[in-house]
Amino acid sequence: MLDDRDTIVTNLGECRVDSPLSVRRFIGEDERVIVDVEYGRVEDSFKERGRASSFENAGPRRKIFFDPAASKAAIVTCGGLCPGLNNVIRALVMELYYQYGVKTILGVRYGYEGLIPSYGHGFLDLHPDTVDEIHAKGGTMLGSSRGNQNVPAMVDTLEENGVSMLFTIGGDGTLRGARDLCDEIARRKLKIAVVGVPKTIDNDISYVDRTFGFETAVAEATKVLDSAHEEARGARNGIGLVRVMGRDSGFIAAYTALASNVVNYVLLPEVPFRLHGDGGLLDHLKRRLEAKRHAVILVAEGAGQEYFGGDRTRDASGNVKHGDIGVFLRDEINAHFKKIDFHANLKYIDPSYTIRSVPASPDDAVYCIMLAQNAVHGAMAGKTDMMVGRWNNYFTFIPLHLAVQKRKKVDPDGYLWSIVKGATGQPDLA
Amino acid sequence: MLDDRDTIVTNLGECRVDSPLSVRRFIGEDERVIVDVEYGRVEDSFKERGRASSFENAGPRRKIFFDPAASKAAIVTCGGLCPGLNNVIRALVMELYYQYGVKTILGVRYGYEGLIPSYGHGFLDLHPDTVDEIHAKGGTMLGSSRGNQNVPAMVDTLEENGVSMLFTIGGDGTLRGARDLCDEIARRKLKIAVVGVPKTIDNDISYVDRTFGFETAVAEATKVLDSAHEEARGARNGIGLVRVMGRDSGFIAAYTALASNVVNYVLLPEVPFRLHGDGGLLDHLKRRLEAKRHAVILVAEGAGQEYFGGDRTRDASGNVKHGDIGVFLRDEINAHFKKIDFHANLKYIDPSYTIRSVPASPDDAVYCIMLAQNAVHGAMAGKTDMMVGRWNNYFTFIPLHLAVQKRKKVDPDGYLWSIVKGATGQPDLA
Amino acid sequence: MLDDRDTIVTNLGECRVDSPLSVRRFIGEDERVIVDVEYGRVEDSFKERGRASSFENAGPRRKIFFDPAASKAAIVTCGGLCPGLNNVIRALVMELYYQYGVKTILGVRYGYEGLIPSYGHGFLDLHPDTVDEIHAKGGTMLGSSRGNQNVPAMVDTLEENGVSMLFTIGGDGTLRGARDLCDEIARRKLKIAVVGVPKTIDNDISYVDRTFGFETAVAEATKVLDSAHEEARGARNGIGLVRVMGRDSGFIAAYTALASNVVNYVLLPEVPFRLHGDGGLLDHLKRRLEAKRHAVILVAEGAGQEYFGGDRTRDASGNVKHGDIGVFLRDEINAHFKKIDFHANLKYIDPSYTIRSVPASPDDAVYCIMLAQNAVHGAMAGKTDMMVGRWNNYFTFIPLHLAVQKRKKVDPDGYLWSIVKGATGQPDLA
Amino acid sequence: MLDDRDTIVTNLGECRVDSPLSVRRFIGEDERVIVDVEYGRVEDSFKERGRASSFENAGPRRKIFFDPAASKAAIVTCGGLCPGLNNVIRALVMELYYQYGVKTILGVRYGYEGLIPSYGHGFLDLHPDTVDEIHAKGGTMLGSSRGNQNVPAMVDTLEENGVSMLFTIGGDGTLRGARDLCDEIARRKLKIAVVGVPKTIDNDISYVDRTFGFETAVAEATKVLDSAHEEARGARNGIGLVRVMGRDSGFIAAYTALASNVVNYVLLPEVPFRLHGDGGLLDHLKRRLEAKRHAVILVAEGAGQEYFGGDRTRDASGNVKHGDIGVFLRDEINAHFKKIDFHANLKYIDPSYTIRSVPASPDDAVYCIMLAQNAVHGAMAGKTDMMVGRWNNYFTFIPLHLAVQKRKKVDPDGYLWSIVKGATGQPDLA
Repeated sequence: MLDDRDTIVTNLGECRVDSPLSVRRFIGEDERVIVDVEYGRVEDSFKERGRASSFENAGPRRKIFFDPAASKAAIVTCGGLCPGLNNVIRALVMELYYQYGVKTILGVRYGYEGLIPSYGHGFLDLHPDTVDEIHAKGGTMLGSSRGNQNVPAMVDTLEENGVSMLFTIGGDGTLRGARDLCDEIARRKLKIAVVGVPKTIDNDISYVDRTFGFETAVAEATKVLDSAHEEARGARNGIGLVRVMGRDSGFIAAYTALASNVVNYVLLPEVPFRLHGDGGLLDHLKRRLEAKRHAVILVAEGAGQEYFGGDRTRDASGNVKHGDIGVFLRDEINAHFKKIDFHANLKYIDPSYTIRSVPASPDDAVYCIMLAQNAVHGAMAGKTDMMVGRWNNYFTFIPLHLAVQKRKKVDPDGYLWSIVKGATGQPDLA
Repeated sequence: MLDDRDTIVTNLGECRVDSPLSVRRFIGEDERVIVDVEYGRVEDSFKERGRASSFENAGPRRKIFFDPAASKAAIVTCGGLCPGLNNVIRALVMELYYQYGVKTILGVRYGYEGLIPSYGHGFLDLHPDTVDEIHAKGGTMLGSSRGNQNVPAMVDTLEENGVSMLFTIGGDGTLRGARDLCDEIARRKLKIAVVGVPKTIDNDISYVDRTFGFETAVAEATKVLDSAHEEARGARNGIGLVRVMGRDSGFIAAYTALASNVVNYVLLPEVPFRLHGDGGLLDHLKRRLEAKRHAVILVAEGAGQEYFGGDRTRDASGNVKHGDIGVFLRDEINAHFKKIDFHANLKYIDPSYTIRSVPASPDDAVYCIMLAQNAVHGAMAGKTDMMVGRWNNYFTFIPLHLAVQKRKKVDPDGYLWSIVKGATGQPDLA
Repeated sequence: MLDDRDTIVTNLGECRVDSPLSVRRFIGEDERVIVDVEYGRVEDSFKERGRASSFENAGPRRKIFFDPAASKAAIVTCGGLCPGLNNVIRALVMELYYQYGVKTILGVRYGYEGLIPSYGHGFLDLHPDTVDEIHAKGGTMLGSSRGNQNVPAMVDTLEENGVSMLFTIGGDGTLRGARDLCDEIARRKLKIAVVGVPKTIDNDISYVDRTFGFETAVAEATKVLDSAHEEARGARNGIGLVRVMGRDSGFIAAYTALASNVVNYVLLPEVPFRLHGDGGLLDHLKRRLEAKRHAVILVAEGAGQEYFGGDRTRDASGNVKHGDIGVFLRDEINAHFKKIDFHANLKYIDPSYTIRSVPASPDDAVYCIMLAQNAVHGAMAGKTDMMVGRWNNYFTFIPLHLAVQKRKKVDPDGYLWSIVKGATGQPDLA
Repeated sequence: MLDDRDTIVTNLGECRVDSPLSVRRFIGEDERVIVDVEYGRVEDSFKERGRASSFENAGPRRKIFFDPAASKAAIVTCGGLCPGLNNVIRALVMELYYQYGVKTILGVRYGYEGLIPSYGHGFLDLHPDTVDEIHAKGGTMLGSSRGNQNVPAMVDTLEENGVSMLFTIGGDGTLRGARDLCDEIARRKLKIAVVGVPKTIDNDISYVDRTFGFETAVAEATKVLDSAHEEARGARNGIGLVRVMGRDSGFIAAYTALASNVVNYVLLPEVPFRLHGDGGLLDHLKRRLEAKRHAVILVAEGAGQEYFGGDRTRDASGNVKHGDIGVFLRDEINAHFKKIDFHANLKYIDPSYTIRSVPASPDDAVYCIMLAQNAVHGAMAGKTDMMVGRWNNYFTFIPLHLAVQKRKKVDPDGYLWSIVKGATGQPDLA
């Protein structure tokens, strides 16, 4: 059970402004959704501790902290591209401008770089007209970059520009950066809300049912698997090998395997596999080729990292740089079959850039609007150091420190992996 | 709070057969997921009644009821087309055949008709090879029909053909039909499991987070809205009017309005609207055309039924036949603007058949596999008179009588409608 | 053989300005492409008349008529939507602005209406930035309308606004309107070039291999046929009936039947068919349903007009208003099967608006650029009263009076219809 | 002007069998289409030589060579995947089976390998039911392989299996292989027709307007360019670098640049470019990044081969193995900017497999049917050592030796390259 302190969202202060929204139902500060929903756990919780863990419900508040007419918002997108970034930007602007009446919205260019004046990026003026059609495109109209920047310098920029609320759209590293900003803001006793919209194409942020862009990524990856399948079938002993995103969590690979119905082997970071020896991947692969003449392998980028020993460096976002398992497998498979003089024809596809840069699917588009509207509700109510999420179908506010504590993973004993194994017929490769 | 009796799933008998599945974790009979997840309600439940309502978790059981080698399955699809039907059929067959070892699977042709010998439809033999690529197509490989058939005659057919379990994929009417089958089966003391996979493109079945095909339908409808938008913009005072499915519930219309970002007015069955007079739709429409030169209206088929008085008949599925609100609005708008001599150019689009007959989106494809695998787990464990669902992200078994009790609706005071109003800027038309 | 006079393009005057283009090869005024390419006809032509008919090649001229810096262009789109309109507008603007240096380009709103001041539409200022991303959308950013307007008043507007060249993007009616403008311009001895870019989704303009948007329309219609096929297969004796565009020419229907591979009966304006009696459509349809349980019928809107006797009115574009053959067939088929007490389940789909309002396919997008660049080359060289086309893979300038003389049709004895009949297996229904 | 001998198609013998086709118009043996259509060239031809070069029209013949009931056909697909392979196979089978009545059709597995018994591939039995839905998939249902096989052994196989006509679907190397087969068949005085259906995704076969699959490839590549554009815009000084197919001819790159409207630099095999120095690519690129912050480069695989000196080997199809210009450019650009300490962020995309393995676009689907039907007409009429093509919108029969003489290329002085330069604004990089 989560400690109660972990789920309490920070407020900048008392809310004294009447919300300009004309919604039929405002959300009370005490409305919460329970975290665990398994009956036994809930029962135990109430019996043993008199309560259960819960998250604060998102949604519009009757009283808000910021006076819209006197407030200025800023939006920043960080890290790698992800479908839906423009949808979130658009919905933030629309909600701020039309629903709350915040008329000045700064677009921060190229991630946290844009908050460092020496880069000379300036700000974009965001207005409903500027953003009206951006959702039709992939990418981010603001540009992005990896990595953090000097925290006091960034807070200087926010302060000098009179920013009341900053929306940071990004993943694990970005949210850690947002935490640092909050600490510095608190130290200076500023009234600036920092609200995160979690963005990870890998769907690996804790306490969020699903992150935006994930579903679109799976849909794009599914098309690639069809290609890999045709390439495999088109050649004698053809092998289609596809690497997809999934640095620490194999959700994209797992869902793509299910969606495409053509994958024979799925390799995830969470499930170790043997390559060589009886019952290893190469052994199974050869037997399948002999029986069926073709095979499709789908590997998440973080799988099989045990094959790359030693120290590894980190990228600008602070992520450990993985060995390239796709290229490794391609070379190992080719070398193995050459060694045993077995004809095979492997086609390797690494579609990452073409998956992550497409426009959001309609379902992701809807989800982005919902996340963005709730992010605005939170910021206007003076909530800070938190991100917006969805949990058990309720939109929630989650303290940032909780969100970045650990990553969500595919449970090797859980139902998702069980369903994938059932659907693909993949043997145990451990 | 749901009465406990309402959530108890019927079992055909004691499970004595070892499951042939090699999954890492079986689901215990006592594993359940709570129904309401709002903290206050859960707390009250436990405090006042010592418990909360819960649903039985789906998933594979260690002991099953049917001996796979001696069992025969049958699959029937009923009612209108819905994206994902073939995916469900495919996944049922794959799971039955490869995971459990049920080798005889009958495909019932053209809905419940196929269980009435006098139609002469015969059965299709379903086998992994037969169904391997059907998911790439919309529609249903089995064919479908509306309406119920003579119940004893259908049970005769099941009995004579030695069917151990029947999977019925269909909506409200189909599930009622399944209930009738269960009653007759119980009366005859037969050991036949009847398991429903809920199918409603409208997403209006209670106690299911989302029904398969809904998301695909929204995606297709979103494309149509783009067309309506261009038609509206392409003409002076152009109006794009689109009617989408949504007999009693406006979920498709609400989500499509969000996904497309081009809708100005959304009309749902759940939210009454005035057509005439100050502040009515026609008044707002005229003012918008004067200001912007174009407008897009999205109407769910069940909206505005108050404009069609009197008695209405029912279709073969037992649904009340609605007045055609799309054609009605088209004619009313045209007549009104003609009467007040205001030039407008309305294009009416009713895309129903092209929305419901497409292949499932990747996300729906995944969901169909998950539903189907769980339906098989349930049937093999001898559960009957129930349907498979998903609730709070857990797959569940829901008694049929509960599922058909009432329809899920868009709450006019809830967050979905609030978000739609925020995103479209639509005024209150009541 | 075409008379030589018919193929001569009008010039506004002598070309004295050096082209600013830095192309490697300019097109000479004497470069022409022959019209008929059948060897026998060409041979006869040269033997008997010493020459063959030919069209003037389009392409950039070394000397041009208008001084770019002193010139003003205007663009108008007329008639119904067609994929590619925005691509043509974009490419006209880009070519005028960047390649020739014409910096003032007026966007005429809502077709020829936009040239009549009393409508109060004003002009849009077209600039590369304005049009940079419009090709991603269907429709026309300028708006459109049907029908002609007062010719002297339109020429007044061109004159008063100092327009040097007008690009009219439209079909038969629009090109006739352009001819009228040219006559009035000539009467006033003005130096205004009027250049048409032929737009007809039906692909029925003479002396043009293919019109832009046609291919995209076929692609969209093909998707609809897949839906019709699944609807037909999904019901006992299911019939999918689809009406597509094709007022006088059945090209869309013919190509869609080939592309989709699911059509059993194709009905074109050019090929009469019998409905009743032995060997008529209804007879064949019943026999097919008895054998296969489903059927797909594709009908062009202009087919079977012999079933609608009497006088018919014309729409604003001057086209004869057709009887609605789709609705007629739906009702006739339903009535016939009811009368003979034969169960059938017909689904009727009329997808016109959703076909014509989509963005251009990549191939159409390329073609639009080629047409637009050549239209600009022609206008800058002072050519007028003509349209740009493609013939035998050469881009050409065609005098307007020739283009509007007659419509291109599917030849019932030609190879296209023969291929369609071969591919669909459709019997002779005459 | 082509020599007449070059355009004469070989016949196996006199046609004495009545065609079973019921088409309205058969094609006479003297029907031909002229090759060059420029008026001046045609005029000169007739004046100076009394004739012009021409190709034999394809189409159905009234008298055919083979008795359908006694004939056996075989189909082989060779070389790399190309959209439309399955469409051609399907249409060949449908035309042979339903229109001509050839009931035995052998599917040769994995290219020419399938004609060598020692591989043990066997044949597939092709029947309308087998191929009915294959067009919905990319790839080839027959499998493919590169390279030729022992010619006498392949002819032995044809002879032993009583094959009357072989349809070879492949590119340059495959057609050369087909020529060898024809020589051996002639040597043995066998009556086996060998008819090619030209397949090259690069669109580089001479005397064919366009090869099937090309348009689909451009459409797929266009999507990738959108991704590259968003990746470029999403990063400070972002560069999207995409390599597409185009071994010797840059048609895919040229058309994709036009279709996508986002390319700044297009590099083709036909147009040399300088990398370094003033006015070279790197110089221009830096200036563009300074001005616009992003750039997109599209390179055909055969471009810039002058940067890879020395001897190069050939692949199994006999094609010279190119140096990898995509990887080379990526590394050169990165090294250059690193050297001059200029921040840039390059994303490299090589989408070849995902482009070539997709299903044919509707327009390509239509074209495949037309090619296939005409290939069957030719083979049934005993024509051999030829391929089917389209020229000046007429379907033609072209002797194989002519088809493989040289490759079609983008003319650096022609209109296509001129249009591309106009549309992209790319400077001269030579």
